[in-house]
Amino acid sequence: MSRLKVALLGAAGYTGAELIRLIDLHPELELVYVGARENAGQTLGNVIPALEGVRGLSQMVLESFDEGDAEKLRDRVDVAFTALPHAASARLGGALYDAGIQVLDLSADFRLRDLGTYETWYGPHPRPDLLAQAVYGLPELYAKQLEGARLIACPGCYPTSAILPLVPLLRAGLVTLDHPIIVDSKSGVSGAGRKPGAAYHLPEAAEGMRPYKVAGTHRHTPEIEQEISVAAGRALSVLFTPQLAPMSRGILTNVYASARAGLKAKDCLEAARSVLDSDLITILPEGRLPDTLHVRGSGRAQIGYAVDERTGLVLGMCTIDNLARGASAQAICALNLSRGWQLSTGVPRIAQFP
Amino acid sequence: MSRLKVALLGAAGYTGAELIRLIDLHPELELVYVGARENAGQTLGNVIPALEGVRGLSQMVLESFDEGDAEKLRDRVDVAFTALPHAASARLGGALYDAGIQVLDLSADFRLRDLGTYETWYGPHPRPDLLAQAVYGLPELYAKQLEGARLIACPGCYPTSAILPLVPLLRAGLVTLDHPIIVDSKSGVSGAGRKPGAAYHLPEAAEGMRPYKVAGTHRHTPEIEQEISVAAGRALSVLFTPQLAPMSRGILTNVYASARAGLKAKDCLEAARSVLDSDLITILPEGRLPDTLHVRGSGRAQIGYAVDERTGLVLGMCTIDNLARGASAQAICALNLSRGWQLSTGVPRIAQFP
Amino acid sequence: MSRLKVALLGAAGYTGAELIRLIDLHPELELVYVGARENAGQTLGNVIPALEGVRGLSQMVLESFDEGDAEKLRDRVDVAFTALPHAASARLGGALYDAGIQVLDLSADFRLRDLGTYETWYGPHPRPDLLAQAVYGLPELYAKQLEGARLIACPGCYPTSAILPLVPLLRAGLVTLDHPIIVDSKSGVSGAGRKPGAAYHLPEAAEGMRPYKVAGTHRHTPEIEQEISVAAGRALSVLFTPQLAPMSRGILTNVYASARAGLKAKDCLEAARSVLDSDLITILPEGRLPDTLHVRGSGRAQIGYAVDERTGLVLGMCTIDNLARGASAQAICALNLSRGWQLSTGVPRIAQFP
Amino acid sequence: MSRLKVALLGAAGYTGAELIRLIDLHPELELVYVGARENAGQTLGNVIPALEGVRGLSQMVLESFDEGDAEKLRDRVDVAFTALPHAASARLGGALYDAGIQVLDLSADFRLRDLGTYETWYGPHPRPDLLAQAVYGLPELYAKQLEGARLIACPGCYPTSAILPLVPLLRAGLVTLDHPIIVDSKSGVSGAGRKPGAAYHLPEAAEGMRPYKVAGTHRHTPEIEQEISVAAGRALSVLFTPQLAPMSRGILTNVYASARAGLKAKDCLEAARSVLDSDLITILPEGRLPDTLHVRGSGRAQIGYAVDERTGLVLGMCTIDNLARGASAQAICALNLSRGWQLSTGVPRIAQFP
Repeated sequence: MSRLKVALLGAAGYTGAELIRLIDLHPELELVYVGARENAGQTLGNVIPALEGVRGLSQMVLESFDEGDAEKLRDRVDVAFTALPHAASARLGGALYDAGIQVLDLSADFRLRDLGTYETWYGPHPRPDLLAQAVYGLPELYAKQLEGARLIACPGCYPTSAILPLVPLLRAGLVTLDHPIIVDSKSGVSGAGRKPGAAYHLPEAAEGMRPYKVAGTHRHTPEIEQEISVAAGRALSVLFTPQLAPMSRGILTNVYASARAGLKAKDCLEAARSVLDSDLITILPEGRLPDTLHVRGSGRAQIGYAVDERTGLVLGMCTIDNLARGASAQAICALNLSRGWQLSTGVPRIAQFP
Repeated sequence: MSRLKVALLGAAGYTGAELIRLIDLHPELELVYVGARENAGQTLGNVIPALEGVRGLSQMVLESFDEGDAEKLRDRVDVAFTALPHAASARLGGALYDAGIQVLDLSADFRLRDLGTYETWYGPHPRPDLLAQAVYGLPELYAKQLEGARLIACPGCYPTSAILPLVPLLRAGLVTLDHPIIVDSKSGVSGAGRKPGAAYHLPEAAEGMRPYKVAGTHRHTPEIEQEISVAAGRALSVLFTPQLAPMSRGILTNVYASARAGLKAKDCLEAARSVLDSDLITILPEGRLPDTLHVRGSGRAQIGYAVDERTGLVLGMCTIDNLARGASAQAICALNLSRGWQLSTGVPRIAQFP
Repeated sequence: MSRLKVALLGAAGYTGAELIRLIDLHPELELVYVGARENAGQTLGNVIPALEGVRGLSQMVLESFDEGDAEKLRDRVDVAFTALPHAASARLGGALYDAGIQVLDLSADFRLRDLGTYETWYGPHPRPDLLAQAVYGLPELYAKQLEGARLIACPGCYPTSAILPLVPLLRAGLVTLDHPIIVDSKSGVSGAGRKPGAAYHLPEAAEGMRPYKVAGTHRHTPEIEQEISVAAGRALSVLFTPQLAPMSRGILTNVYASARAGLKAKDCLEAARSVLDSDLITILPEGRLPDTLHVRGSGRAQIGYAVDERTGLVLGMCTIDNLARGASAQAICALNLSRGWQLSTGVPRIAQFP
Repeated sequence: MSRLKVALLGAAGYTGAELIRLIDLHPELELVYVGARENAGQTLGNVIPALEGVRGLSQMVLESFDEGDAEKLRDRVDVAFTALPHAASARLGGALYDAGIQVLDLSADFRLRDLGTYETWYGPHPRPDLLAQAVYGLPELYAKQLEGARLIACPGCYPTSAILPLVPLLRAGLVTLDHPIIVDSKSGVSGAGRKPGAAYHLPEAAEGMRPYKVAGTHRHTPEIEQEISVAAGRALSVLFTPQLAPMSRGILTNVYASARAGLKAKDCLEAARSVLDSDLITILPEGRLPDTLHVRGSGRAQIGYAVDERTGLVLGMCTIDNLARGASAQAICALNLSRGWQLSTGVPRIAQFP
């Protein structure tokens, strides 16, 4: 079988670099085209220094890609990953889709099903006509819809880490919803992207643990709410607190909700095992708790639960690698399912430990 | 004025090392005696490598101290810091107290006013007779009681970071208490003490963000509940989630509670400014958020608030240095107040930045 | 083709964990047996928390393996990796070798060709009879000897990083050897192994850059000397300075030697390109310098050179991942060559970036 | 005694921030004026977030300072620290000096005594007339010259860490100089300043150990050579290799030189104890080695030596905090000596440990 030809737009960012690493590990994929905005004309080896000297990749030149170029790729590529800023991603990904190329978009552009919600948080949408085609690419939850999908909206990193532990509780009716759900997340600094800034400057980021965009001002809020509302069968709001932790990769998310009377941790674990049966999700046995180190570099998520009888609250915990399961590895899982392959084909199942 | 003569029991741990650093900066204190359990007979320079070559300290020999030695210190020292494991701290600190020496205890032994609660979480108390003498040494909240206090229970690190942002909300009645308070804390690894272990081994702790002792199993839970119950005027429970963050020092604590209708962040800030008026507490203006880096090495706490109208929740945030404001620097502030000195005498007001 | 059956002795250490990760990525290998000394009876998921929940591995039980068990493995496994303390590794690896199983030993036991040198640094050798069978598994330098090799001594991490930049200079006669070669190396903390200790305790290792075992006292010294002496055609001594850097993985080694008159950096690069032609080695163009981040998690080494005309010295620089190219990935490369496969089969060519 | 009034130009950088922290700890200094270039008009609390809420400092406004303003400061300040980019520092520091104000310059502008050397490395010098007035402010080596000094050139961070271990060897004639001296230094990222950049972006700096500006291209080279040539009594060249280590603060420098026949480590230690007798320098006993963690935040330097008989080389090792002993704390030590105070007045003698 000949490998799928892959194009990547946005190769110079972290999710782009991670995609290149993962595509190189995948037995059925071959990277044939890389595009970038600011770094067009440079080689991959220059733009991503870890690629310098990697045969077949180091000397690939980043192409300046615009809508008009989509047609030219029609016969050269089978699938495109778009890892661009919002709006640009929809515009260019849309053009590729129109040209008959399967598109996996890693921006926020196709994640929100409701156009109004999108516009509230992001502004005008360049391709609202495509919203209905897009499948939300959380593979364990949308496996059926992903079969044959041609436009896949890859989930955000924070939402992935919040949705995974919440959906089993909500689908199984284990929480009462009489109190707002709280999502307290800690992310490695790579989640902020590759553009340097004071908050990410090592001397000011190492030994710095800090919240930002709190109290419903972070754009991942509506994505979390969309997916947990589906699971609950009613509209839910969350209080979402993103925080930067002094590390490169990884997200730990704690979710807090009111437990149904008599709920035990084992009920939660059982619900999770049933909803999230996957080669790439570890439902931790009671008493063991997730750790970002234990998923680093892999497509794996770790999930654990605890119930506090004194306060009547349930705590769900989830760790992922924000660039892998929170972005690029999850995109490849979605592609795998869309093509009828095993979920974890070519995706590292095991974290780099330590 | 001649300086106070200080004894330190438990010099080989991190809070001990931090006390030595701070005593050296304090114009009115002089360290004259150091005791330790396992390292007796060694020099400070051997036990704390940062003290090697520090004149007047490097060659001090750690003494093996037992109850019987308290009397011998009566004329040699004015004040003793005890930074020992629980029970040992009460036993030896109690003996020093009996010998007429002022005692600042950094263990948990005198923090809980209720003997039963202590015994539930820690086991038998060697000196229950002293519980009523002890003043809880959170300087801004117990300034009056600290005047002349001879037995001071220095607060725990997590409790300090939770109590500071919660007490103003509770005293001012800004939260409704119809839902349990949640305390989500992230601590640097030094909070686990100096004894090496797999969870603190750099390769397994760097890049590792992980919860531990969740759902009401961490011993700091009753201390938080004690103090916020006083502030609220009724018994309160909290769900406390401690987490290790991949850094050496620092705690970031988020507290979540149900906001009174119409509450604004500025109301919270105003309450905090009134209750926590201090040379060592920064109530951040709206829109600025705390950062552990900004308090590192100092006696300072940073506090901020946000209110989420959609969910009706208030979020309080606090950062401290767990070894400084969360232990040793706070102990010195308490000593300062007990002696009628300015709160921040000899205490670094400014974090080491970066 | 059916996959090779692999046994791993020493599964609970970091090189063991890394081998498991890499074997899982390799299309021709299948892990069928894991042994360990202290953790026998436990599951892999317990001993290596990143393996918890990994299907097919999580529940594998670590076997207590002794010499007498070698025969039983004869028909079950094709190849064994031994990642045990020295002496134990030779003893048990030797037994497996005697049973007809191909052995890749990751300890120091078969690296030194001279028995006397081994005994000086390590003590009695349990299997001196095998020293002559062992091939030194640095794949680019011993490709021919590795073909069909049944006992492979996998190089040490520091030696790999020193030998790679030095051998091209020495083979091509670009340095004068009128002054001792200096090897100044900085290693991530995982190089010290998985056993916790004060020097590796995060609070004392983060922000700590420190030398240890300096001035010819580190056991990797004779291994470096052995290999560079072969390349130079005469006995050479080095001054080797190992240092711990505050990171988990990675080694940066600087080598200093006296340059032949008129030497230019491009001469060094040319020599390196010729000697180290490999899918897994990047010879950096002039003006670009190695970085541990750019090889992390991969089998890649980065090498650069600079010549200082004022002092007449040449500086060679090399970065590797100590657990990957410095241990487990390099072992798999050696296995690949021994089986007639491509050097990089199943080995990540691309670092996890960032 | 009333405290000295201090002005600080360049308050927004890291050495500026560190000066503010240290001035606040100093019993004889009072900060009365802060200037900055890009941040003029902002408050200190905005520009240095760790100062937010610090009474008396948080609301100080950064002034835009130009040469013409020097006269206005004549009666308001006694001493000025200039921590500006080169050329700007000499120009503005020169104006303050002309106005009768004592100046401690933390840039490179007054460090090199030879104008030609300065111009080769930095370009035109705005105040060559002042070069002869400047005293090189390495306090232990220039204590006499610092008495009453009115223009003090505060040493660079790398040079401080190289000069301290080399000067005793050279003054005592313990090295033969028949081979160039090698200086291999590892610095925390704060040494690169506060301006964000890709190399300092946490995701690309954490876990990254890398050389830069190698082989005589770093501007600190001539400063090291100047001072060791003075000590040796003849012109010396060094090969200097600066490297970034994945930490915020600290420098570890290894110096390599040819040992005089029969040299022992204890000879080196003895020489160092004699030349560097200081309250702020630890000459480590044989067998103990420096660590950046053990000097962090303090004015202390740690120095150790080892001699390798096999290669005939001596290794000197030194750790400092690049922002403290390598810049701001050392500047205050120099000021102390210039005023006839104790070297360590108001300077932390003890590192923040851990």
